[in-house]
Amino acid sequence: MSQTPATSPAPPADQAVPADVLAAVSPLRLRRVAIDTYRENVAYLNRDCAVYRAEGFQALSKVEVRANGRRILATLNVTSDPRIVQCHEVGLSEDAFDQLGVPKGHPVTISQAEPPASIAALHRKIDGERLGRADFESIVRDIAEHRYSKIELSAFVVATNRGELDREEVYFLTEAMIASGRRIDWHERLVVDKHCIGGIPGNRTSMLVVPIVAAHGLVCPKTSSRAITSPAGTADTMEVLADVELPLARLQEIVREHHACLAWGGTADLSPADDVLISVERPLSLDSPGQMVASILSKKIAAGSNHLVLDIPIGPTAKVRSMPEAQKLRRLFEYVARRLDLSLDVVITDGRQPIGNGIGPVLEARDVMRVLENHPLAPQDLRQKALRLAGRLLECDPDIRGGDGFAIARDILDSGRALEKMRALIEAQGAKPFEHERPGLGALSFEVRAEQAGVVTGIDNLQIARIARLAGAPKVRTAGVDLARKLGDAVAAGDLLYRVHAGFQSDLDFARQASDKSSGYQLGTPGQLPHVFVEF
Amino acid sequence: MSQTPATSPAPPADQAVPADVLAAVSPLRLRRVAIDTYRENVAYLNRDCAVYRAEGFQALSKVEVRANGRRILATLNVTSDPRIVQCHEVGLSEDAFDQLGVPKGHPVTISQAEPPASIAALHRKIDGERLGRADFESIVRDIAEHRYSKIELSAFVVATNRGELDREEVYFLTEAMIASGRRIDWHERLVVDKHCIGGIPGNRTSMLVVPIVAAHGLVCPKTSSRAITSPAGTADTMEVLADVELPLARLQEIVREHHACLAWGGTADLSPADDVLISVERPLSLDSPGQMVASILSKKIAAGSNHLVLDIPIGPTAKVRSMPEAQKLRRLFEYVARRLDLSLDVVITDGRQPIGNGIGPVLEARDVMRVLENHPLAPQDLRQKALRLAGRLLECDPDIRGGDGFAIARDILDSGRALEKMRALIEAQGAKPFEHERPGLGALSFEVRAEQAGVVTGIDNLQIARIARLAGAPKVRTAGVDLARKLGDAVAAGDLLYRVHAGFQSDLDFARQASDKSSGYQLGTPGQLPHVFVEF
Repeated sequence: MSQTPATSPAPPADQAVPADVLAAVSPLRLRRVAIDTYRENVAYLNRDCAVYRAEGFQALSKVEVRANGRRILATLNVTSDPRIVQCHEVGLSEDAFDQLGVPKGHPVTISQAEPPASIAALHRKIDGERLGRADFESIVRDIAEHRYSKIELSAFVVATNRGELDREEVYFLTEAMIASGRRIDWHERLVVDKHCIGGIPGNRTSMLVVPIVAAHGLVCPKTSSRAITSPAGTADTMEVLADVELPLARLQEIVREHHACLAWGGTADLSPADDVLISVERPLSLDSPGQMVASILSKKIAAGSNHLVLDIPIGPTAKVRSMPEAQKLRRLFEYVARRLDLSLDVVITDGRQPIGNGIGPVLEARDVMRVLENHPLAPQDLRQKALRLAGRLLECDPDIRGGDGFAIARDILDSGRALEKMRALIEAQGAKPFEHERPGLGALSFEVRAEQAGVVTGIDNLQIARIARLAGAPKVRTAGVDLARKLGDAVAAGDLLYRVHAGFQSDLDFARQASDKSSGYQLGTPGQLPHVFVEF
Repeated sequence: MSQTPATSPAPPADQAVPADVLAAVSPLRLRRVAIDTYRENVAYLNRDCAVYRAEGFQALSKVEVRANGRRILATLNVTSDPRIVQCHEVGLSEDAFDQLGVPKGHPVTISQAEPPASIAALHRKIDGERLGRADFESIVRDIAEHRYSKIELSAFVVATNRGELDREEVYFLTEAMIASGRRIDWHERLVVDKHCIGGIPGNRTSMLVVPIVAAHGLVCPKTSSRAITSPAGTADTMEVLADVELPLARLQEIVREHHACLAWGGTADLSPADDVLISVERPLSLDSPGQMVASILSKKIAAGSNHLVLDIPIGPTAKVRSMPEAQKLRRLFEYVARRLDLSLDVVITDGRQPIGNGIGPVLEARDVMRVLENHPLAPQDLRQKALRLAGRLLECDPDIRGGDGFAIARDILDSGRALEKMRALIEAQGAKPFEHERPGLGALSFEVRAEQAGVVTGIDNLQIARIARLAGAPKVRTAGVDLARKLGDAVAAGDLLYRVHAGFQSDLDFARQASDKSSGYQLGTPGQLPHVFVEF
């Protein structure tokens, strides 16, 4: 049953002006608007701009800005203030301007963005359907290309939340996220890495594990993130000692020579869709198992690892709060890793309290260096945990017998070979002046002391992290919290529990207000110590 | 098992400076930033502002701005351009500035917003739990107070989408939305209203039904919306003839005197949470049955109606595309209405094509006036549909026998009493000069003609609406589409199908491009006419 479409006769040639031509007749000029909209591209048009009216734009609609063969997508804001943009200009927020990569004043065109091709698949997921590999590929590609609005991103994150993705869908999602960016090939048979699912302040084991296993000869090109919600990430802490923002070519040289690096992963375009999704997952505090697995494994595989030791800490204020939950998460990680040919070793650890003493970039760098130097003040929990993880990683070497890894790691650390390797890495990445025994901590400080005698029965990871962040970490590198007591320690009334360092009076005041409200410490009797889920 | 919390000794008094005091020491000043962020409150801080660093703000975090005992919530954007805001200023986007209602230069304080109290309930809904009445109350209150970010709003909309709300939850949601704003009491036994679920261009039946039933003596205080995604809403069209933005007190006077009004509902603070939710539902194109029922019934009940005739059009390009779908929607509307003591009469209508000829404010006003005047060019489909709906509404009068409504409505219309009532309403609201037989349509126009002979077998509601919007409607009141042929009409090659009017050349060009791509008309044989779902 054929139907004849009715069409109009072609309009007279002098009236058939396509949008591109219109724009070319009176070109708009690019302007950089110095507003930081945090990973959300925003374009600014003047309300009196002819193209604004002509295109039927609506504020907050998605627009495409093109110049010089390049294009970006942005959310439209409309202004009547010519000091922000004039009628003949298109303004772009800082990030958007950088992404377009075209100089100020360059001619640009702007038009309504086509809706992302994958929106139909998103709607099917919202309606509760199971999606296939091609659906995830198309959704993740659109996300990586910034074609989704914040609203569409949230819809995807909620529609794929807890229980909404089966394990094969998590595999498809992970695979699509790997494909959304660069994938590094180190041209090595065995490329090892370690990762912690996060949530434990301190806990800078990577900066110990990497030099230990590299000293043994394993290839461990570690790329890390900066802190997002925590007081310090590995990249922030390593940056106290050395440069971490290195071009990929330089990283490859360093890895060839030293078997390792400790760098920031942000420049390498690894799983870029992950970064976009995090910008929504974080404010929603959504971190469902499927999304966590896809995020972590996509980054690691894109970074070229083929063997990963994964640390899942359990504790009352950790991300994972019970052993059954940890085991369920382990199984999902293992399923997806197997589908993607990644050899994975999951280690469940004690997440009841921060690891190490210092919390904040400089304080954590001090702890790491003390462990490497076998210093008498080195925090023993950080040392033990790093040795355990390094031992498990070493055992992926076919020449090492199962169970021997810990002792070998300890020998490498005690003999100073790990310190030597760390010094070589620092030198190779570009050493920064840092005397960790005189680390120049934030000049302002206050102390929190025990009101009465007892045993430390609880240290709240979340509250301690919050106090360290309010004190200025990680932005103020010398700020943070220095713990003097850990779980099980007996204290007398007036004993120091921790010291807070800050660089600015106002930061110090905010940290003190938070610590006054809740110090993060609980004192009680030894019987009140929380259950130890795991044994070292 | 009591635990002793450890606390720090009180800090020295000279250091314990709470945030409010800090801000008072060096007060920030309010500035209006002329950026239209479309219902999203945005606050602008200068990157060098001390409070920005001190508070540990992050771009896009939610902040609370307080002044003069008032407060609003906003999303933070950070700028380094002192022409936007200087270090001692807090900028607010246009909407946000109006909401705070404090003059420029006034001292303001800004702080991190507390997370909305209902976020825990939101997370339970995301996890698939059924929520109770108190949960919906708390969520909807936070939404109405703009405490939710766009991301949290999207999460709520997706988590309560199709199938996620049972009918009692829809009732709780509707009830909470009513409670989120003002509820008008007209002090009348019977207050009637009509509503269409939307999606059909033209279709200005309210402007006929209201004068008909008011002429009969029923109280019908009609508040309408402006167009959101359509080329004209009832408020836009009525505004061609009279003022529609009237203070509530004046509306009440008019209703007392004339039994009716035809006004814009935006000033009355009816179900304000609905407006906030729509700002997310619309870009997501989500309009699930539960959300539609809650949105429509909350507005109607808040506006004081106790008897509602609801129009559900069905058609291949309407919102509802099949009779089973319409029946399912009808049952949900009826359940919630009964729980809220609203008498509801659902009418399922023919939504296969636009209703009336004109699409756009002035064109639709012309059609309405022609029907009221029994003009020979009056569109018969608009007349018939209005009479049918008015008849159903009249039958809620206990003195009218079931089945007599249509004839009574027709008498009121044919006798000129409806026109007389409409003239009285126009006069009361503030008449505007408008000669509907010389309506001053957009001076630029083009015609779309049939390429060959046939019968009109399809008119795409969505495409016709799109062409009318591109032509400038509703912003350009005189712009739009004027249909010359409707379903079933026979046409010869070269016959006019419709004419497009625009006020600006660029608008005309955009509309023509869209119409070239697809005219919205299908021509075929009479056997290809789409099934008529409903009979008049």
